[in-house]
Amino acid sequence: MYIIMVYDVEVDRVTKILKIGRKYLNWVQNSVLEGELTKAQFERLKSEINRTMNKEKDSIIFYTFRTSNYFKKETMGTTKNEPTQFL
Amino acid sequence: MYIIMVYDVEVDRVTKILKIGRKYLNWVQNSVLEGELTKAQFERLKSEINRTMNKEKDSIIFYTFRTSNYFKKETMGTTKNEPTQFL
Repeated sequence: MYIIMVYDVEVDRVTKILKIGRKYLNWVQNSVLEGELTKAQFERLKSEINRTMNKEKDSIIFYTFRTSNYFKKETMGTTKNEPTQFL
Repeated sequence: MYIIMVYDVEVDRVTKILKIGRKYLNWVQNSVLEGELTKAQFERLKSEINRTMNKEKDSIIFYTFRTSNYFKKETMGTTKNEPTQFL
């Protein structure tokens, strides 16, 4: 399955959530990752996030598709560089 | 067509880009909007963004679908409130 993950978390958890996301998905731009995962990998990703996030304050959304053929992606402007210096 | 818009723009253009996005789409969480648009509306949205963004520094991605039936959406944690106080 293909996953787009977007997160809106408080600043002290941004690095942790990003690090978990990058174990499973490809960084796209600030707060957005995407990639192909098995169902088992997706469950592990959610479980890791579940242990790290603050459920009262953070929000994480997963859009899931059977394949990446179901959407078209258009980018305007620059392609952002992954902020590896923060990890 | 159904649109998910994610943006990663420099701080002095965040409010402007958000304001344009909200004319056409529903705010979901920080830097993410989504909604159903006609092709003509989508073209107008891109045209407005095109005039406002800095193409060297900002990045805006549109994921487009024929209908919202093509994806499943899972939210973990809280539902964020729209930052209307900033507009």
